[in-house]
Amino acid sequence: MMVENRHYRTIWAEDGDVFIIDQRHLPHRFIIESLSGLEDMARAISDMHVRGAGLIGAAAGYGMYLAVREGIEPQKAADILIGTRPTAANLGKAVKRQLEALEGGGNPVKVSFEQANAIADEDADFCRRIGEHGLRIIEDAAEKGPVNILTHCNAGWLAFVDHGSALSPVYAAHDTGIDVHVWVDETRPVNQGARLTCWELSMAGIKHTLITDNTGGHLMQNGMVDLCIVGSDRTNRFGDVANKIGTYLKAVAAWDNKVPFYAALPSTTFDLAKKDIPIEQRDGDEVRYVQGLADGRIMRVLVSSESTPAANYAFDVTPSRLVTGLITERGICEASERGILGLFPNESSD
Amino acid sequence: MMVENRHYRTIWAEDGDVFIIDQRHLPHRFIIESLSGLEDMARAISDMHVRGAGLIGAAAGYGMYLAVREGIEPQKAADILIGTRPTAANLGKAVKRQLEALEGGGNPVKVSFEQANAIADEDADFCRRIGEHGLRIIEDAAEKGPVNILTHCNAGWLAFVDHGSALSPVYAAHDTGIDVHVWVDETRPVNQGARLTCWELSMAGIKHTLITDNTGGHLMQNGMVDLCIVGSDRTNRFGDVANKIGTYLKAVAAWDNKVPFYAALPSTTFDLAKKDIPIEQRDGDEVRYVQGLADGRIMRVLVSSESTPAANYAFDVTPSRLVTGLITERGICEASERGILGLFPNESSD
Repeated sequence: MMVENRHYRTIWAEDGDVFIIDQRHLPHRFIIESLSGLEDMARAISDMHVRGAGLIGAAAGYGMYLAVREGIEPQKAADILIGTRPTAANLGKAVKRQLEALEGGGNPVKVSFEQANAIADEDADFCRRIGEHGLRIIEDAAEKGPVNILTHCNAGWLAFVDHGSALSPVYAAHDTGIDVHVWVDETRPVNQGARLTCWELSMAGIKHTLITDNTGGHLMQNGMVDLCIVGSDRTNRFGDVANKIGTYLKAVAAWDNKVPFYAALPSTTFDLAKKDIPIEQRDGDEVRYVQGLADGRIMRVLVSSESTPAANYAFDVTPSRLVTGLITERGICEASERGILGLFPNESSD
Repeated sequence: MMVENRHYRTIWAEDGDVFIIDQRHLPHRFIIESLSGLEDMARAISDMHVRGAGLIGAAAGYGMYLAVREGIEPQKAADILIGTRPTAANLGKAVKRQLEALEGGGNPVKVSFEQANAIADEDADFCRRIGEHGLRIIEDAAEKGPVNILTHCNAGWLAFVDHGSALSPVYAAHDTGIDVHVWVDETRPVNQGARLTCWELSMAGIKHTLITDNTGGHLMQNGMVDLCIVGSDRTNRFGDVANKIGTYLKAVAAWDNKVPFYAALPSTTFDLAKKDIPIEQRDGDEVRYVQGLADGRIMRVLVSSESTPAANYAFDVTPSRLVTGLITERGICEASERGILGLFPNESSD
């Protein structure tokens, strides 16, 4: 997508090195980071220089390439990368693809580099197609007038290689001239909504309003939300959607107010095997502190007392009964085993 | 309640002057502010030096006294005070009580001073009795083991003159030796949970864990919440509960997970006349910025871009169908016209 007249992806290779947008500094600074080895990439993922379902997968793909280039044993690199963010389905899949490609022989550096590029290209392509399919839902809603969409966290192009999942239909709708406005949940504790989604939408010239995570229910009660679209970090074979903590609260409020609630995800986010979705717990300091800009510096402020005990569950699971549909690169399906396998009959369940 | 071995109320008169705890600085600083006139008090309410259902009422009572002492016409003072926080029911009631008392004749300064003290004393007494009644619910839950209670915002003693509403049963349970733990929603945008409720509970030695507003649903889905207790800023004759924005999201999640959901409120918070509850909208900067401590200073950081549009609805309305019961100074009743009028048959509806 465009950042001030130049096209960017969130991750790319140039002269064999890997580059990312270090998203910790957005929207205040636009900083490109160069990563030269596995350790760099593992830290970039766990410390959230990069984050988001598809981007974590692409980053893991490039991480395997960097590891191979360093001469690190692939399975060891795979274990390190998988340990960085346990809920992200795309991560495990990308690593597995790399391991399978490397088993196929050939020059390992060349093989893993090409595979990493293929994973990234596929992610961008899948997201573009999610936009085409999701556009239909927004077009339908637009028959009654301007469309108000609520989203949680950031499932825009910054969460993938390009285009995004939840926001891809919004970009497609805006491109076709539909009058669309996005309610953006700030998404504590890391504020991906306030920091990233608002920035993305402003770069694209799309109307949006920042709200606290507490606000979406009130808006739905008062007819101010036409539909919700969120992303997913892992969706199981029954259509249960793991996504950023707080997603379930919006889904149950949407259900209570008869507001359609969609999750948008490339098939790489499906995990058709596992029944239990592991929920990552992160450091309580993310809850006690908030990062922002003051006096021209990015700093963090302590909101509670420093000694206040805090729990930090990063994701929750929205049961399929609350999900109107899944928007994928092959089309929109019911959030159910039948719906998912209807679109993806050959999807592996291992 | 006790602050480091000394008993405090949130507001009090001493030698004819009025003093408050300036809650904007908690938990980082404990600052007492002296208020000498109506203007001081109106600013203290609108800028949230004091906040919370009962405390706003008591503050308005003392505000009328300060105005009378300055020679300001009572109805003019009443209009100014009512304009400060439109959703708070206690505010209007306290002002009305003062106007009625002043109409009864006598030395207006003495009359309004005594009335202000009476309003404050009544608030503290009602809250103490709310604790006695609500204790029964916690005692019942404790039969199965330790009790996990989720609360939103701050409805502790800092929100009233003493004891609090939602937290009063928690204090009572702790005093009787029940093993109780409180999940505290941080409560964006102003973070009354992170700043005030956690501080209150730590002062009382009650176990608690700070969570983001996004987290409660996940906890309820996983059996980690036994009951929810919140306060209210205005409850109508049908039992619909206006409270801090985000309360509705917790109520609908509690309903979805069969977790009992109570609102605790003194009868002064009922508004049995009006059908529509006005929802205050506050400055978007409260959403864009977060206040906290850094480098030993209380400062605020900008989370989004400064130009990001933001909406800031301060309250939402939880429909009575989602409320298990109302805990009042006269006992616990159904959240319905029948339930409320059963306990308060003589409650005025004007």
